[in-house]
Amino acid sequence: MEATPFARDCGSRQVLDRIGDRWSVLVVLTLADGGRRFSELARRIEGVSQKMLTQTLRGLERDGLITRTAYATVPPRVDYALTGLGRSLLDLVGGLEAWATTHLGEVEAARARYDAAG
Amino acid sequence: MEATPFARDCGSRQVLDRIGDRWSVLVVLTLADGGRRFSELARRIEGVSQKMLTQTLRGLERDGLITRTAYATVPPRVDYALTGLGRSLLDLVGGLEAWATTHLGEVEAARARYDAAG
Repeated sequence: MEATPFARDCGSRQVLDRIGDRWSVLVVLTLADGGRRFSELARRIEGVSQKMLTQTLRGLERDGLITRTAYATVPPRVDYALTGLGRSLLDLVGGLEAWATTHLGEVEAARARYDAAG
Repeated sequence: MEATPFARDCGSRQVLDRIGDRWSVLVVLTLADGGRRFSELARRIEGVSQKMLTQTLRGLERDGLITRTAYATVPPRVDYALTGLGRSLLDLVGGLEAWATTHLGEVEAARARYDAAG
């Protein structure tokens, strides 16, 4: 049977959730030009909570999109980097980011009209 | 100031949420080749609850991505269709769907490895 997110129990629905998720998109984009530490990711992705970032990184690692490398330094250092599978997402998430920023004005104008029509 | 979803209060974050959302992706794809009724959408997108579909359609309409047209027939008929802005999303959401189905096996294998490593 072919995989399709239109089917109730197809795992591709969970994959869609992962790759379309706001925080996943921002993490993947931040890792585009090389590995980053947790603190660097937290700084770049403004306002993400430590808990949400931890959860997002764990999900991306579990799905094979990023690697996590711990170094036995003092203090301990942990680096995150894209895998080949993760890199294959770069164009797509870059497209999502570009669409969101390019069309933000149109979306906000549509919302204002919708809300005014009540 | 340039819009960027990396900024804490930039509205492009909400736009990312909308366009990356599983149900939004499936609705937009279903409307790719023409308008559809609520019941047609519900049938095509297996397992979506009436409440979730209603909420998704309302969000897409509010953001200017689809139109809702009600006909005064008995029983009343309501059609949904993509706007120009919605159509501009087709390549992107098609890309998300294709990535999710193409790489499902790799993601599932990565998950199995991760869970086995405990």
